[in-house]
Amino acid sequence: MKKFVNDPRQFVPEMLEGIYLASGGALKYEPKYNLIYRADAPNPNKVSIIQGSGSGHEPAHTMIVGKGMLDAACPGDVFAGPPVEFVYETTKLLNSPKGVLHIVNNYTGDRLAFEQGREMCEADDIKVETLLVNDDVAVKDSTWTVGRRGVAGNFFVIKAVGAAAEKGASLEELVRIGNDVIANVRTLGIALSSCTPPVKGSPLFEIADDEMEVGIGIHGEPGRQRTKIVSANEIVDLFLNAVVPDLPFKSGDEVALMINGLGGTTIGELYLLYGIAHKKLESQGIKVFRSYVNEYCTSLEMAGASLTLLKVNNEIKGLLNEPAEVSIRVF
Amino acid sequence: MKKFVNDPRQFVPEMLEGIYLASGGALKYEPKYNLIYRADAPNPNKVSIIQGSGSGHEPAHTMIVGKGMLDAACPGDVFAGPPVEFVYETTKLLNSPKGVLHIVNNYTGDRLAFEQGREMCEADDIKVETLLVNDDVAVKDSTWTVGRRGVAGNFFVIKAVGAAAEKGASLEELVRIGNDVIANVRTLGIALSSCTPPVKGSPLFEIADDEMEVGIGIHGEPGRQRTKIVSANEIVDLFLNAVVPDLPFKSGDEVALMINGLGGTTIGELYLLYGIAHKKLESQGIKVFRSYVNEYCTSLEMAGASLTLLKVNNEIKGLLNEPAEVSIRVF
Repeated sequence: MKKFVNDPRQFVPEMLEGIYLASGGALKYEPKYNLIYRADAPNPNKVSIIQGSGSGHEPAHTMIVGKGMLDAACPGDVFAGPPVEFVYETTKLLNSPKGVLHIVNNYTGDRLAFEQGREMCEADDIKVETLLVNDDVAVKDSTWTVGRRGVAGNFFVIKAVGAAAEKGASLEELVRIGNDVIANVRTLGIALSSCTPPVKGSPLFEIADDEMEVGIGIHGEPGRQRTKIVSANEIVDLFLNAVVPDLPFKSGDEVALMINGLGGTTIGELYLLYGIAHKKLESQGIKVFRSYVNEYCTSLEMAGASLTLLKVNNEIKGLLNEPAEVSIRVF
Repeated sequence: MKKFVNDPRQFVPEMLEGIYLASGGALKYEPKYNLIYRADAPNPNKVSIIQGSGSGHEPAHTMIVGKGMLDAACPGDVFAGPPVEFVYETTKLLNSPKGVLHIVNNYTGDRLAFEQGREMCEADDIKVETLLVNDDVAVKDSTWTVGRRGVAGNFFVIKAVGAAAEKGASLEELVRIGNDVIANVRTLGIALSSCTPPVKGSPLFEIADDEMEVGIGIHGEPGRQRTKIVSANEIVDLFLNAVVPDLPFKSGDEVALMINGLGGTTIGELYLLYGIAHKKLESQGIKVFRSYVNEYCTSLEMAGASLTLLKVNNEIKGLLNEPAEVSIRVF
């Protein structure tokens, strides 16, 4: 296994400790609940925003805790939702008079943990609302899901509600904004390789040297089809032909365009895909308001990429333009 | 080959076009010289800062053109220095009354191109100075180098002189600051896998499933030794035992600590390494002023990481804290 690890079972806690130590005091770490949270949270004048979900998708979501994004993240192990206890204890610790917002990617395990955790919190008179992210157009239901999966579009949901919460928006306003983003964001992923969870120690699935999986899930779940690898131009067509008609995105629309790396693909290839997608969208009259080219939601070291479109209005544009301060950064 | 490409020979220009299109007008692109440059350059009140070097190390250096960093980048093809013509034409186009600074990583091809390009510019009465980055402690001379190689420490040189240039520093001041950073920065890299240049279409070198290369070069050049993969704790010892005594870094020193991914390693593993290194340094009395955990200087999709230490004084700390605006970003 080509990984930097000690005991593979300690991969997640050791990574979380690194995030904590790298933060220079901006974050706190509670190992009992795999909990990374803002050192200044909870803030009584601000809704607390929490995500759980599995590890192995970094920087989502443990590395986007900070000002203007999440207040806390309490992940499970690699590709495993958090136990109910993590959700309950995190929500109690982060409880604010303005309420707590759970952002949940639509996977059965995550949903169960957050639904039960929310019920336990409500019994304690903690005010909780939930956003359910389901941006992946690849499949209607999947191995791990009833309904569509939540993938890289999750970033935009967190960015928008995180910025609004920073300005003092109420829990009800955040639910409206978050659901507006969810209604307008769509993603498709394509994998060129598998990935190896540290404890498993072997690849999640087999894929031939000349093959790709179109519509891959971020836990290696099957997508729409297994085909021969085609050119980058044809791959962008596969992305856009799935994503554009789904909303649909139309001539005259303004969008945020994200090319997200799945972990093992170079940033150079992501920019190459970006350039092709940008030109094809503009030729359809769809204007790119802002570009996002990086790793946002990965599947460990999987080679591959996803394309996300978010249709933006003035409110969303304003929220995307707000600053944020999180672990994952260059400077 | 598990890559998103069209014609592999067009990989670099298509990537550069993507960088240009993603910039929203902040950058310009001149395909004749693989040239990405700031839309507001040259600025007559500011020294212009230029880097050439090979492609395949992204985000270095084409994706760190922008305010507070490089004014222009004119890369060669993957792992190939730029032709002299690129250096000459780029320097002429970016010429400022305050002068032009070339930042050159110490590889024979890069040095030749920049030395000849500088001579041609000086014949045109363009004022040029050169910084030579050589932070890699792994080997004294290497396949591609007389003297030490320039690797991820390059980021800190650009950050410091980029920030100072933004404040109007003279060419002579930038040379002093840059050489101060170079004198205080040290790096070692470890590879777990090889990588595949797009045109070659096959891995640069062979490495067994249980092996790693200690002291790897960013073009796959051999390092100090080929050994079995050891635990992350032992790997951090290998890093620190090579880097710390080299300057030497001593108890009481303040440092910037960078864990740089070589391309195919997950950000989770990089944070895991960071946490271990942070604790080991603090136990030696070496205080971490600021953390850098991301991909800064890659070798395509190579699995691996490097550790860089920069000893900081008040001047360098101030320059590292300045803002910058480049392609590579999260928000």
